[in-house]
Amino acid sequence: MYRTHTCGELNISKVGEIVTLSGWLQRSRDLGGMTFIDLRDRYGITQLVFNMDTNAELCRKARKLGREYVLQVIGTVAERSNKNQKIPTGEIEIIAEKLEILNSSEVPPFTIEDDTDGGDELRMKYRYLDLRRNAVRKNLELRHHMAQEIRNYLSAKKFLEIETPVLIKSTPEGARDFVVPSRMNPGQFYALPQSPQTFKQLLMVGGYDRYFQIVKCFRDEDLRADRQPEFTQIDCEMAFVEQDDILNVFEGLTKNLLLKVKNIEFDGPFPRMPYSEAMEKYGNDKPDIRFGMTLHELTPQVKGSGFVVFDSAEYVGAINAEGCAEYTRKQLDELTDFVKKPQIGAKGLVYVKYLADGTLKSSADKFFDQQALIGWAETLHAQPGDLLLVLAGDRATTLNALSELRLEMGRSLGLMNKEMFAPLWVVDFPLLEWNEDSQRFYAMHHPFTSPCKEDIALIDSDPGAIRANAYDLVINGVEIGGGSIRIHNATLQQKMFTALGFSDEQAREQFGFLMNAFKYGAPPHGGIAFGFDRLVALFSGLDSIRDVIAFPKNNSGRDVMIDSPSTIEEQLLKDLSLEINLKAE
Amino acid sequence: MYRTHTCGELNISKVGEIVTLSGWLQRSRDLGGMTFIDLRDRYGITQLVFNMDTNAELCRKARKLGREYVLQVIGTVAERSNKNQKIPTGEIEIIAEKLEILNSSEVPPFTIEDDTDGGDELRMKYRYLDLRRNAVRKNLELRHHMAQEIRNYLSAKKFLEIETPVLIKSTPEGARDFVVPSRMNPGQFYALPQSPQTFKQLLMVGGYDRYFQIVKCFRDEDLRADRQPEFTQIDCEMAFVEQDDILNVFEGLTKNLLLKVKNIEFDGPFPRMPYSEAMEKYGNDKPDIRFGMTLHELTPQVKGSGFVVFDSAEYVGAINAEGCAEYTRKQLDELTDFVKKPQIGAKGLVYVKYLADGTLKSSADKFFDQQALIGWAETLHAQPGDLLLVLAGDRATTLNALSELRLEMGRSLGLMNKEMFAPLWVVDFPLLEWNEDSQRFYAMHHPFTSPCKEDIALIDSDPGAIRANAYDLVINGVEIGGGSIRIHNATLQQKMFTALGFSDEQAREQFGFLMNAFKYGAPPHGGIAFGFDRLVALFSGLDSIRDVIAFPKNNSGRDVMIDSPSTIEEQLLKDLSLEINLKAE
Repeated sequence: MYRTHTCGELNISKVGEIVTLSGWLQRSRDLGGMTFIDLRDRYGITQLVFNMDTNAELCRKARKLGREYVLQVIGTVAERSNKNQKIPTGEIEIIAEKLEILNSSEVPPFTIEDDTDGGDELRMKYRYLDLRRNAVRKNLELRHHMAQEIRNYLSAKKFLEIETPVLIKSTPEGARDFVVPSRMNPGQFYALPQSPQTFKQLLMVGGYDRYFQIVKCFRDEDLRADRQPEFTQIDCEMAFVEQDDILNVFEGLTKNLLLKVKNIEFDGPFPRMPYSEAMEKYGNDKPDIRFGMTLHELTPQVKGSGFVVFDSAEYVGAINAEGCAEYTRKQLDELTDFVKKPQIGAKGLVYVKYLADGTLKSSADKFFDQQALIGWAETLHAQPGDLLLVLAGDRATTLNALSELRLEMGRSLGLMNKEMFAPLWVVDFPLLEWNEDSQRFYAMHHPFTSPCKEDIALIDSDPGAIRANAYDLVINGVEIGGGSIRIHNATLQQKMFTALGFSDEQAREQFGFLMNAFKYGAPPHGGIAFGFDRLVALFSGLDSIRDVIAFPKNNSGRDVMIDSPSTIEEQLLKDLSLEINLKAE
Repeated sequence: MYRTHTCGELNISKVGEIVTLSGWLQRSRDLGGMTFIDLRDRYGITQLVFNMDTNAELCRKARKLGREYVLQVIGTVAERSNKNQKIPTGEIEIIAEKLEILNSSEVPPFTIEDDTDGGDELRMKYRYLDLRRNAVRKNLELRHHMAQEIRNYLSAKKFLEIETPVLIKSTPEGARDFVVPSRMNPGQFYALPQSPQTFKQLLMVGGYDRYFQIVKCFRDEDLRADRQPEFTQIDCEMAFVEQDDILNVFEGLTKNLLLKVKNIEFDGPFPRMPYSEAMEKYGNDKPDIRFGMTLHELTPQVKGSGFVVFDSAEYVGAINAEGCAEYTRKQLDELTDFVKKPQIGAKGLVYVKYLADGTLKSSADKFFDQQALIGWAETLHAQPGDLLLVLAGDRATTLNALSELRLEMGRSLGLMNKEMFAPLWVVDFPLLEWNEDSQRFYAMHHPFTSPCKEDIALIDSDPGAIRANAYDLVINGVEIGGGSIRIHNATLQQKMFTALGFSDEQAREQFGFLMNAFKYGAPPHGGIAFGFDRLVALFSGLDSIRDVIAFPKNNSGRDVMIDSPSTIEEQLLKDLSLEINLKAE
């Protein structure tokens, strides 16, 4: 037995007991005739004391130990004279009587502290040491806790967790698949699932009316900051349900998580907002509603003043930055630079300062008189002291730029409180999205999403106007997940494939097994999937999902700790009937 | 809202209530002026009644419905005159008032009944229909229940479930890896994990002293009856523990499962048996101890009688089939044929009948007198009425053949009660196994397994005699899982790699990151992994794991439902810098 207690559990009630602890040497201090060692494990830190006067040999042994040595200590719990109220074990220390070195350690390449001196790359290479840090550990503990709460909640609601296969079939629709060559079927490949979508629909056909799974999914994308080639999804599907049934269950799940994990009681239902309203008011389908500063369109009231920027614009809109009328020239220039960044794409920024004396001062004074500017201020519900920020251009770009500007202002004004959770259902998404390049419609959600009943008639005349029974859960501007009511009727599904430009043969080849299944009594069904990594990151107050994953990959999809991917043996390639061809693509 | 109740919950207390049910048409019967429909969902079956006298139009509509149609019915709960006590809803029926056809169904290719007329292949192709059968559904429900119990038990014991990566690095040791070509790192591959072994050890180095994960693992093997290319493991690791600590925790887990899932209270500790004893008494390292009939060696007492089969044998051994002295010639011939099957490999079978009158009659009477045969009977604790079955040959083959013969006798004598659970820890496995072909030792468990302290000295002189700190949990002759205390000392690990014939470079290349990690304070640690599919199959009373997997693959690794693996698009291959070469290997 390596220990009687952990390093996090001893307190004043145990004074006098002889205990055995094991853990890592966090730090050590020699003070005159005494040596103090902080012994660390997953549960906390306990102070060990070695005394030169009473046990010189042991004390000398203790003085030779380095950081991150693994120790086993037997000693007596004693009350500390110099108490540390910051930690649960701070009132006691262990008078060491026996010390065993379980393992030595080289000097770690960075300090194992909350504020480490290790850079990102170094910490990833030595992730097993990074994992020892409190900051990382509490993320993984939270992740475990959340997964447990989710499973218990859904199980209590009669959901069954059913494992769907990882080795599945590649389909060209959607993102790029990772593929796995099959040795037993030469020239053929499995694919790793981007989601268990078709399998969960087949489970509905199979009568499992409440399915869930916390499951790894895979996407071979060029990685952006917050993407990983493998990620974890809370994947769910229900049969004999309408949209409201699904929203209610997963609103319940989210509220339960907020309560159990963050101790936040959320009163009343989550607000719901149609996609069209989200775009109009926030320029974005995942609005952060922790703060207002909504977008207001000015197009009709600014036209015809001779200001060519506005006169030629498809859309002119503004936000009201309350209390910012005193912004300096420099601050306004910075905002102008911000919106002109290529990824934001505005051509420039017009501001209107609503001064304390009730006058308005604008960078477009030449074209607009006080009366006109007062009109803008009214549209934006502005008061003296406020600052209007106006952008103009084509509709899509300008809405997006205003959305980015709004978030930037929210950040700089401290309106995005990490302790606040503002959930929102975005509903009534468009069913289809037109793609100019390929001159065809794509499914905005996926090809199995059902159209709103009242819009079905538009499928031939105006497919772009059809709304879908699709919904996203957004919290603090982060898209936590989304889903839809599916098509359960083979004829309608066929029609949908046609609208998406699939030939019958393509549809059959890619989704034939699903179409077939639908011939044998598919129930009405729908589902949702939450990004588990993002949900944990949000609950951790972190911006990146990488920090809530034990062994993440870097932006080139590499695991720098194990140095993967890597070359494989020639024989294995042969067994797979494959050759590598590194010629330019 | 598609339903107010499920098809499994209405009973006599609800008589008079108006309810809405949804489900599948299981069967329908027209009796005079009435039509009865059994409506089925995941929760049960409820009888619907349509009456030609009171609602002719509705009744006519009901008579047109086919099997597996999806229906929604509104009606009134009524007491049945003809009660069915076999099902919870058997005392009531629904007098239908409204009927909506939610979906039609073609005639399914096999009947959705406990005893279906569908063959294996057909059921796999239409797995979504097979999943509707009670027999399959209860397996998946049990699987969910067991996973929940396991997670709750381990979480309560402070284990953290931590997800390890699926895209990892290929290592030539062990079984064959599935590999995944990396598009972003041309010519390089990820591998899918055969187990999270190295990652869980790194988590121990990282200070997570109690880790578990219910996790998919992958092995590209030529499939045998009870293997799947992807399978699920309950994977665990603990730090600051000795073998006993691990056995205690997982014995507790197993007992808790037996109690919660099978309502079996298991008293006292699980028996433990050294590997050497298991081989000697059962000819097998996974003994089924639900019954005795242990092996007894006869080698010394049968030598020198002039019977060349025995005289030339390395090993002669027998089992005692109690009460089988009356076996007929035909039965004995069948047993002889059984042991002579190539996969069993015995040359023949010698029997001794211990007749009721106290005389013994053997197929080797020519060489052994009554006195000699009495001696055998004594060794095997046989009584009049018993039958001794004797095999001879080289030791390994004969032990295996006796083991198979014992199991065959156990089966035919009905000694293998599926309701009984007989767990056993097999301990003290050999550390190394000699391979004649490659003339080197292989790790019996894996290269990280620690040797028993008292045997370490043998590493240079007699490596084959070293016992390992390794253990298997066996239940009813099924290997549920196994594990070991790991080496946590870099020097000893290095020595082990040398004993296994790894060059320093090979060891560094394949396990360098683990060796490196061990330099920074690795704690003493060990772990275990249970095969979850096998555990569920055992608890379900099933012989094959295929029946406890929602979407299994067949023996060629194919999913015949989705027709996977399959060819992929040329462009995807190009993006992966790969070419297919189907030339002979």
